[in-house]
Amino acid sequence: MSGVDGARLWSRLQRLAELGAVGAEQGGGIVRPAYGSAHADAVALVALWMREAGLELGLDATGNLIGVWPGREPGLPAIALGSHLDTVPHGGAFDGALGVLAGLEAAQSLAERGERLRRPLAVLGFADEEGNNFGIGVLSAQLWCGEIPPERYPTIVDREGRGLDAALAAFEVPGVPRVARPLLAAYLEAHVEQGPVLEAEGRPAAAVEAIVGISRTTASFVGQANHAGTTPMHLRRDALWGAAELALAVRDLARASDGRAVATVGVFEVRPGATNVIPGAATLRIELRAPEEARLAHLRAEVERLAAEAAARHGLALALDPWHLAAPAAMDPLVLRATQEALVDAGLPPFTMPSWAGHDAKVLAAHVPVGMLFVPSVGGISHAPDEYTRPEDCAHAAALLLHAARRVDAALDAREARTA
Amino acid sequence: MSGVDGARLWSRLQRLAELGAVGAEQGGGIVRPAYGSAHADAVALVALWMREAGLELGLDATGNLIGVWPGREPGLPAIALGSHLDTVPHGGAFDGALGVLAGLEAAQSLAERGERLRRPLAVLGFADEEGNNFGIGVLSAQLWCGEIPPERYPTIVDREGRGLDAALAAFEVPGVPRVARPLLAAYLEAHVEQGPVLEAEGRPAAAVEAIVGISRTTASFVGQANHAGTTPMHLRRDALWGAAELALAVRDLARASDGRAVATVGVFEVRPGATNVIPGAATLRIELRAPEEARLAHLRAEVERLAAEAAARHGLALALDPWHLAAPAAMDPLVLRATQEALVDAGLPPFTMPSWAGHDAKVLAAHVPVGMLFVPSVGGISHAPDEYTRPEDCAHAAALLLHAARRVDAALDAREARTA
Repeated sequence: MSGVDGARLWSRLQRLAELGAVGAEQGGGIVRPAYGSAHADAVALVALWMREAGLELGLDATGNLIGVWPGREPGLPAIALGSHLDTVPHGGAFDGALGVLAGLEAAQSLAERGERLRRPLAVLGFADEEGNNFGIGVLSAQLWCGEIPPERYPTIVDREGRGLDAALAAFEVPGVPRVARPLLAAYLEAHVEQGPVLEAEGRPAAAVEAIVGISRTTASFVGQANHAGTTPMHLRRDALWGAAELALAVRDLARASDGRAVATVGVFEVRPGATNVIPGAATLRIELRAPEEARLAHLRAEVERLAAEAAARHGLALALDPWHLAAPAAMDPLVLRATQEALVDAGLPPFTMPSWAGHDAKVLAAHVPVGMLFVPSVGGISHAPDEYTRPEDCAHAAALLLHAARRVDAALDAREARTA
Repeated sequence: MSGVDGARLWSRLQRLAELGAVGAEQGGGIVRPAYGSAHADAVALVALWMREAGLELGLDATGNLIGVWPGREPGLPAIALGSHLDTVPHGGAFDGALGVLAGLEAAQSLAERGERLRRPLAVLGFADEEGNNFGIGVLSAQLWCGEIPPERYPTIVDREGRGLDAALAAFEVPGVPRVARPLLAAYLEAHVEQGPVLEAEGRPAAAVEAIVGISRTTASFVGQANHAGTTPMHLRRDALWGAAELALAVRDLARASDGRAVATVGVFEVRPGATNVIPGAATLRIELRAPEEARLAHLRAEVERLAAEAAARHGLALALDPWHLAAPAAMDPLVLRATQEALVDAGLPPFTMPSWAGHDAKVLAAHVPVGMLFVPSVGGISHAPDEYTRPEDCAHAAALLLHAARRVDAALDAREARTA
């Protein structure tokens, strides 16, 4: 065994969940937006636990909590274990929090045995992943990586018009000093799956191979609104026909991918929208996700081809607006192998899957070697008050992070030895 | 030739179209709701023309204009030629107006030659067919037929809260006396097709076999809203899948009817309606129209079967709300034959088709023998400022009414002789 204390981790998850908790009559769950008072309370509480664990701790310039268990060799970049401390409105107790507290548990487990990796082990609590304040998801990871320069902070404003610069300046947590960000050798993030795959397949955990890319396209069909009685079927140019055919064709594309893609039409509108008028216009938004860039590009091209075919079949005009494209992020091979080996080290069956949702790790993957570990979400539910991950699966997350950190530390050593 | 004066008819259509006409900057077309001042002006103008033609004229108790060319034999019920004098907001010059003025032209043609049928020939200008004031379509035809008793009039209110009783009491046209409604032996209505069939098939006119029945059903699918990334395709219960499949299946049903049915999904909504959320609910409204009651009932049952199958395929809950059913109205066989013979009498190729929209004739069909005649709508357009029917087709309408009235008069005589 790894020696992590599952009961302590579970207890901390429950206590952290009290910060920002709202009653059922107000929607329930946890409301803990970044830089708010509940977030500050969360930072203070986790900092207290970090201090108890013997970590060196502080807040970086953008409100991320950092706790470090020093390594054997001074001056090396750190292996980071992290996730985020904010929640969506009425969110759950595990999304984000688990990655931070499981990381802390892994570090504390080392500290309690006086075990040091060669590199420092850093536990990171990112401030703003959910993007509730400024409308920018994974904001803190972008700030950490320098993707948004400080001179732009005043232009990033919340709903009250307050700039990010002001929010950062106002975010103080008593007793937690400011520290510089450590250089990172690798980043490991444990997270709840937020989907039903592990539960449905009876898997206790997974190594993550890649974080999917996302393509979003709006397809607009225009035909001819007309009288629903007097217009014979063969003289209609019904925009709904093209849209419905495309929606189903897109679904079938993803179904044919053998689990390597998903496609969703979440927005589907027809106009004018009257019972006795043939729809003259229909708009749908098509979201594609796939872990491989080539597959995503192929699917995107197929959607465009299918849309054009549907339009031509029914005499419709078609406008395609491909308004969003985010490339997939493959996990670093060295770190991926470490997470796969960690499953074996922990006595769990090997299993590797994509992450179908975005995470802080996706941003960091462009800058440092990154890996992720998933544990099951009961019912696949997340971003909701009834988000739940069982205590034993939370303990697995901590054990897996610990094993993976050791594996990464050793693998980086081995790579250095090869390249030396 | 029938001796109708096509130029006079065309001139009258143009003059009548000036009453209620609005400029393009106000939406264009004709705004002539029943019982308004433009309608009163229209009644006065048509009454003037009726008087010039030598008809006995007046308004009935509910504002319908009646002009009678007496028959050879006193006391017999009348053969009526009619339609309505109101328009939809920003409507055209032919819907309704053509049936009234072509009927007047037919009667005037008889009068000018001193020709009398055995029965009186009544020209009817119904007040409220479009239902713009009180939200009740074919209101005047229902009032004429006694389907709405006078004690209910105060409960039928317009947007200003004014009751139908008050509107009727206030509707006075100087110089036009009140008269009793004549008993009707038959009702003939000429109308613009309001669809593209005659134009597309190169037909100058049609006898109408039946006015279609209409079935309207709301189908609501409920699945499971979920994360568009983390939920694998095979674990989704996407309400859009059921709704899109049903919309296309309903279309294919109507397409397989060989022109004897139409089906329209004019309302199609998915919820929650976010790009990255699988639709948990989808609602569509399905309208079916068919000229035969048995076909309509069969289609309705098929829609329910197909909806249940789509729901079962995707694990969706289904609620069906069949909120509207209006039976088709077959034309009276004697009057239908008369309208078919009228085409031949007028030197036009025989053609018979359903009316895919409702008309005053549909209400009267439950009470008196009814027939209809269609002439082409250019581009199939109606209820719009650019509604147009060519002068020669308008003249055909008058000639066809005249021939059909003679045929009905003779056929009724023949039937009386057989039953005597």
